[in-house]
Amino acid sequence: MTEADFIAALRDLPLHPAARGLVDDAAVLDAGPGLVLTKDMIAEGVHFLPGDPPGDVAWKLLAVNLSDLAAKGAAPIGVMLGYPLSDTGWDRAFLDGLGKAMRRFGCPLIGGDTIALPPGAPRTLSLTALGQTDRAPARGGACAGDALWVTGTIGDGGAGLAIAGGAAGPEALLRRYRRPVPRIAEGQALAHLAGAVMDVSDGLVIDARRMAAASGLAVTIDLSRIPLSAELKAFSGEDRAARLAAATAGDDYELLFALPAGAAPPVAATRIGRFGEGGGISLTDGADPVPVPGRAGFEHRA
Amino acid sequence: MTEADFIAALRDLPLHPAARGLVDDAAVLDAGPGLVLTKDMIAEGVHFLPGDPPGDVAWKLLAVNLSDLAAKGAAPIGVMLGYPLSDTGWDRAFLDGLGKAMRRFGCPLIGGDTIALPPGAPRTLSLTALGQTDRAPARGGACAGDALWVTGTIGDGGAGLAIAGGAAGPEALLRRYRRPVPRIAEGQALAHLAGAVMDVSDGLVIDARRMAAASGLAVTIDLSRIPLSAELKAFSGEDRAARLAAATAGDDYELLFALPAGAAPPVAATRIGRFGEGGGISLTDGADPVPVPGRAGFEHRA
Repeated sequence: MTEADFIAALRDLPLHPAARGLVDDAAVLDAGPGLVLTKDMIAEGVHFLPGDPPGDVAWKLLAVNLSDLAAKGAAPIGVMLGYPLSDTGWDRAFLDGLGKAMRRFGCPLIGGDTIALPPGAPRTLSLTALGQTDRAPARGGACAGDALWVTGTIGDGGAGLAIAGGAAGPEALLRRYRRPVPRIAEGQALAHLAGAVMDVSDGLVIDARRMAAASGLAVTIDLSRIPLSAELKAFSGEDRAARLAAATAGDDYELLFALPAGAAPPVAATRIGRFGEGGGISLTDGADPVPVPGRAGFEHRA
Repeated sequence: MTEADFIAALRDLPLHPAARGLVDDAAVLDAGPGLVLTKDMIAEGVHFLPGDPPGDVAWKLLAVNLSDLAAKGAAPIGVMLGYPLSDTGWDRAFLDGLGKAMRRFGCPLIGGDTIALPPGAPRTLSLTALGQTDRAPARGGACAGDALWVTGTIGDGGAGLAIAGGAAGPEALLRRYRRPVPRIAEGQALAHLAGAVMDVSDGLVIDARRMAAASGLAVTIDLSRIPLSAELKAFSGEDRAARLAAATAGDDYELLFALPAGAAPPVAATRIGRFGEGGGISLTDGADPVPVPGRAGFEHRA
C-alpha cells in the first residue's frame, strides 16, 4: 500500500479533531491536567507472529495501550500510530481491526507516522495512547492490611496463547488472547478508591509482586480464590497446577488493585489476597503454603 | 544492553516530572490547551545507515520531531521514546547523543517503551514529541499576496548527505545533516504573526508547493534569493544548478513561512517568493522563468 493510500484509509477511521484531518504536520489538542501517556512498540517475531491475523495485531496493540490507561483511571483521548507500510492485504486487514477496536473503545486517531522498512525486515509498530484522568493511582500506593482484588478471570489469555500455538481449545480463549478488552470503565470507577492499580499483562504473580515491591510491602495470594472462567476450567482443569499456570501466564489485561480491608469494590472483582509488612510474594492454596514457582511470569518481555 | 540497564541509563537523562522516575506504567502530565503532538519512526537502512554514528541518529530523531513542534510555534514539553535494545556500545552511544540533544533543546524524557527485535532485524525507533503553543499556525494559512520567507540557509543538509555518502567536503555541512538544530525560538516568535508555517524537511520546492496547495494558492520562488551558506557556496558553487540542487534537497529543518507583503519578520529570515491566486509552483532566477525540476524533493520518503 502506498503512503497516500494508507493515509486516505486512515481518514475512514474515527479521527480526533486534533488530527486536523491528517493534512497537517502535527496534531494540536486542548488537553488539561491529568493527561496520561503510554507507549508500546511491538515487533513481528517477538510480540506477534507473521501468521497472526493482522486485524488481531491491530486490536491488541490498541487494547494493551488502553489497558495501561485504564490502570490510571483514564478515559481514552486518542492515539498516535507509527506504522510500517507493507503489502496491501496486510495493511487493509490491520486497518480493519484497528477501526473496529477504535470504535469499540471510543478511541480516535490523533496522528502518527508511516514509514517504509527495508525489504524483508520484520514489521515493527508503535502506538502512543493519551487519556485523561482526575486521579492516577500509582503502582506503589498499597497499604499494609489492604486486600488485593482482581477484575474478571485470570489465565484465559495464557490458554489462548497455547491455542494460538496449535493446542486444541475453544475459540473463546483464543479470542481472549487475540482481542483482549481493556477494563476502561472499571479503571475509572477505581481511580478514586484504590490505593494502587495495575493491569495484569505479564502474569498475576509477577505483577502482584511488582505492586507489593513498589508499595514497600509483602503480598500473599490465595490460589484457590483466583477467578477462573468456565472455558478455562474445561480446558485445563482447576487443580493447583492449573491455578498456578493461570497465575503465571500473561495477557490477561485485568485490573489488579488494592482496597482497604473490608471495603467493597465498585466494580465486579474477586478478592484474592492481602498486603502485609515485609517484602516479596507468598502463595497459598486455601490454608496450605505453596512454593512460588521460578517462572512467575514474563519477567523480561521487553 | 538489558532492559534494566537501559532504563537505569535513561534515568541519567533529563526526566520530566510526568515520567514518575520511570518506575510506573504510564506518564501523568498536567497539560493545557494547545498541546502539540508529533511522531516519527525511523528505520535502519531507510532513514539512517548501520554505519551512522548512533549519537547522531539519536540527535536527529529528536531534532526532526522538535522541528515539527517549532513549525507549530510550540515549546517542547518532552518526548516518549520507543527503542529496540541492541548491543551495548550502540545503545550507550545513542543515549549519549540523545542526552546531549535533550539538554541542548531543553526537552526531557516523559516515558516510552523498550523492546527486543528478532536477531538481525534492522533497528526501528520511534519518538513522540509533545509541545505547548498559544497558537498553532496551519500549513494552509497563506493569503494571496503574502511573501514567502525562510530562516537560515538552504541546501546544507543535502550537501551533508553527499558528504556522508563519501564526497569530500567540510565537516560543517556534514554536521548540518547529522545534527540539525530545530528553529524552536523562531517558531514561537512566528506563531502569532505568520499565516502559515512549515519546516523544510523534504526540500524547499516541494514543501513550498505543499504550503501553497494547502492554502489553495500558487507560489513563486526566486532562486537567486535562496540563502546559501558560505560553506555550501564553496562546496557546490552558487550558479542556477547549485541553487536548484539546494532547493530540491531535504534535511534543512529551516522554517518556511508566509507573511503579509511589506511585513518584516521578527526573526532572521530571507524573503524568497510570494503567493498568488491559482495553483502550483513557479521558479524564477531573478526575472528569468526556470522550469520546475521533475524531482522537487523527497516526495515519497515515507
